[in-house]
Amino acid sequence: MIQTSPKKIDCWVLSVKLQKPSLKDNTGDTDRLKTSLSKILHTNSIHMDLSLMKEVPQLLRKWDYHVQCILFKDSSGWIISGLTHTAEKKPITGLALDLGTTRVVMRLIDLCSKKVLAESSFDNPQIKIGPDILSRIHYTSSKEGLGELTRLIIDGCNTEINHICNSCRISPEDIFIVSVAGNTAMTHLFMGLDPYWIIREPYIPVVNRPGVLKASEVGIDVYKYARIFIFPNIGSYFGGDLISGILYSGMHKNEETSILVDVGTNAEVVLGNKSWLIACAGAAGPALEGGVTKMGMMAGPGVIDKVRIDPDSIQFEIHTIDNRPALGICGSGLIDLVSQLFLAGFVDVRGKFVPDACEEKLIEQDGIQCLIIVPAHESGTKKDIVFSQVDLDLFVSSKAAMYTILNTITSSVGIEFKDLSTFYVAGTFGSFIDPVSAINIGMMPDIPLEKYKVLGNSSLGGASLILTHPEMIDEADKIQNCITYLELNVNQEFMIRFSGAKFFPNTDASLFPSVKVWQE
Amino acid sequence: MIQTSPKKIDCWVLSVKLQKPSLKDNTGDTDRLKTSLSKILHTNSIHMDLSLMKEVPQLLRKWDYHVQCILFKDSSGWIISGLTHTAEKKPITGLALDLGTTRVVMRLIDLCSKKVLAESSFDNPQIKIGPDILSRIHYTSSKEGLGELTRLIIDGCNTEINHICNSCRISPEDIFIVSVAGNTAMTHLFMGLDPYWIIREPYIPVVNRPGVLKASEVGIDVYKYARIFIFPNIGSYFGGDLISGILYSGMHKNEETSILVDVGTNAEVVLGNKSWLIACAGAAGPALEGGVTKMGMMAGPGVIDKVRIDPDSIQFEIHTIDNRPALGICGSGLIDLVSQLFLAGFVDVRGKFVPDACEEKLIEQDGIQCLIIVPAHESGTKKDIVFSQVDLDLFVSSKAAMYTILNTITSSVGIEFKDLSTFYVAGTFGSFIDPVSAINIGMMPDIPLEKYKVLGNSSLGGASLILTHPEMIDEADKIQNCITYLELNVNQEFMIRFSGAKFFPNTDASLFPSVKVWQE
Repeated sequence: MIQTSPKKIDCWVLSVKLQKPSLKDNTGDTDRLKTSLSKILHTNSIHMDLSLMKEVPQLLRKWDYHVQCILFKDSSGWIISGLTHTAEKKPITGLALDLGTTRVVMRLIDLCSKKVLAESSFDNPQIKIGPDILSRIHYTSSKEGLGELTRLIIDGCNTEINHICNSCRISPEDIFIVSVAGNTAMTHLFMGLDPYWIIREPYIPVVNRPGVLKASEVGIDVYKYARIFIFPNIGSYFGGDLISGILYSGMHKNEETSILVDVGTNAEVVLGNKSWLIACAGAAGPALEGGVTKMGMMAGPGVIDKVRIDPDSIQFEIHTIDNRPALGICGSGLIDLVSQLFLAGFVDVRGKFVPDACEEKLIEQDGIQCLIIVPAHESGTKKDIVFSQVDLDLFVSSKAAMYTILNTITSSVGIEFKDLSTFYVAGTFGSFIDPVSAINIGMMPDIPLEKYKVLGNSSLGGASLILTHPEMIDEADKIQNCITYLELNVNQEFMIRFSGAKFFPNTDASLFPSVKVWQE
Repeated sequence: MIQTSPKKIDCWVLSVKLQKPSLKDNTGDTDRLKTSLSKILHTNSIHMDLSLMKEVPQLLRKWDYHVQCILFKDSSGWIISGLTHTAEKKPITGLALDLGTTRVVMRLIDLCSKKVLAESSFDNPQIKIGPDILSRIHYTSSKEGLGELTRLIIDGCNTEINHICNSCRISPEDIFIVSVAGNTAMTHLFMGLDPYWIIREPYIPVVNRPGVLKASEVGIDVYKYARIFIFPNIGSYFGGDLISGILYSGMHKNEETSILVDVGTNAEVVLGNKSWLIACAGAAGPALEGGVTKMGMMAGPGVIDKVRIDPDSIQFEIHTIDNRPALGICGSGLIDLVSQLFLAGFVDVRGKFVPDACEEKLIEQDGIQCLIIVPAHESGTKKDIVFSQVDLDLFVSSKAAMYTILNTITSSVGIEFKDLSTFYVAGTFGSFIDPVSAINIGMMPDIPLEKYKVLGNSSLGGASLILTHPEMIDEADKIQNCITYLELNVNQEFMIRFSGAKFFPNTDASLFPSVKVWQE
């Protein structure tokens, strides 16, 4: 048995030319193929399904013992997930899936050229059961509830796989490997695993490392012997989407310490370098995503995504998506808005509207102070679009929670923000946040802007890396294995930090030297 | 990752008590179980099917985190093939299968106590397609032929599994692992693999090491997540039944060199010790099994299985199975018969009938000399049961081939028969052969009788060992891996030996000092 360390290969598709059988070498067809591969892969742990085995004799002879193997691997070893002719013209592809609670994004990749062939997305069809994870998990307690949720997401994926393949004029049969990143609950629903205990103390997932499954057993209609890699999670509240994000950022290989933050309803944070990684997750509150505020909504045409207040005229400059009349505001727009309101003096350091500055823009609705952001005659709803003190208070709590989490995790290892080499902003939402605005309101630390690195859809990015760089599948497991999870104790120290972070930008203004309000 | 060498366990059923989950230890249910096992097994390569994973959370909580795991393993690592309660009363069983061309034998074993619960057998239902492997393989060339043959054997096994389980008042669901030994063609038909190339030069099987498969993918109806180990072969003509026999004999662990022989249509021979194993197979001819001779038949009521000629009266003493009137003769009876005929002088050293000795027993039928063994009035057929010169010639060729193969393999490594510590006689047929008779005719070497060790159904014996001794599954692979296959060249030297071996007992009588004819 060959026992040297496993060899790195740079592509999942490997061409092998076998010794032809003879009376002197009567090795079986499957074993002949495996033996050739084992010389390249430096291991004997190579698996092939019985059903593929049945096709091997004919394929080897048809192709004159020169074949392309589509490989994959899990913690136990390599898997031959498909065989093609070396002169095969159709692309041999893989699919990366970002399994979002709200939106599912897929990317079709040529496994040989590593080029992206297409990308597409669709609303998670489970939304019709419940907009958030919690409501969906509750639904699984009903009879057939889990089955229905699983069917919805699997069917949704299969439909979109058909679309994306059609758009590239290939068949789903040409997809040989799939890699899936999603939060713990979403991947559980995807695999048909009961998420019941995920939301109940002590919050135990069915599985942390699902590893590599058969596409057919999950119900994904691609090549019949295709395999699916599901990113591992490190708990109910720190999912595979984050592990995928870390993989994509490369922070786990950096000499210097950096931080990665996924801003959302939950703020998920990872701190570390190539020697250690520490992670925590905490409720930052849906206010940051614009989910709770009265005027908040998801990004779409007519939604305010950027806000500027002209320092001279003190006029609001509102930008909406597609320049349509304003309907509401999304999370990044909200961060911009609050930042500008604070700098312009409409909001004070305590996060309260300043009537003298707001003047006639400040009205009262149902006994609550509201600031008119877009007047009725300019809005797409024909009503005033307002931002209330209640919305603002919620927002303040959320931004304070975000900062406190960042503060707590860095303090836990005795690191200051200024020591960080990079501040990775992960996730699609994060990529729309203007770091300057986030710093102005004291939500993110006041570090040089060039240290901020926006990753975009890092979950999809990491899932794609699995397809283009075989060694990444081991790295994903290594990341999962080496992360220390920091349980956020909401203790007195946390509360003190949190109270301070509820001010604009913070009670300790020295932490935010770059933030200058226009009128002192 | 734990990298120490894999631990040996002495039973496939392992009881584990897990740390209960808490806020401080939120490891997923499946991973919690695997982690506990990995401490015992000293490896992280532990696989569990998605479908079993789905049941884990409920089972762990129902059984208060104290479970019995039914394990199995293949070359890639361990497999959790089932979970039961530690207080489970029903036996946890495994099934050993000897997949014979003619007869299939199964043995049900309690995996914990290692006791044999039941044994049963049935005629291979493929006989209705063809009595021998060759005719069945030809049949696979017809449309649906392979499917039909596979269905016949799988259905036959499933029916018998039901019977054997009923007889023990257990359910097929209580069978968690299955181990199957059979010749290369039979295991191919069992797995649904096309045996087309097995009988065509250069005789290539689809697979040498099928390893561990899911019972469900093969179609065997036992516990839904059960696994099946198929013994590896080393070529089209040296199957898993032989590897299983070697395993059962233990010769691969002996300090001293021994030989193992499976006598049948094919003579399969293995020579070696713990350092090396060399094997060869050659056509000995169906005459040895009684298959070709006119009076030959398979063992059954009325079949002659023992023959003695009284040295004083020169009367034939014929023993039949169940003492019924004679219908024919089986292989072991034939070896006895020829041995006695030679010793009594009815047959000379050249293998020809001696008219002066045979007297009126020697008649002529269709111009061929025939010896009456049982006269018509005593036989069950009401006809003379005769043994013709043609039958005798065929038999002589077969016994000569057998001896020549033994001679060739030992000579190839410079070993003499007297150097052998043990002469294992494998296979069911072999267990009926009287070694004295086999020596008398020069079919087997003239070594001390105590060196002969009859193994009985060694194929079933080896398959059973897999169930009772987990380390044996690695040993089976090791045996397959270390055997050198000796291609029997029918060259001049072989032919010289063969010619000499066609005499009784041999041209070189000094090789058979113990053989004494009664009248010189």
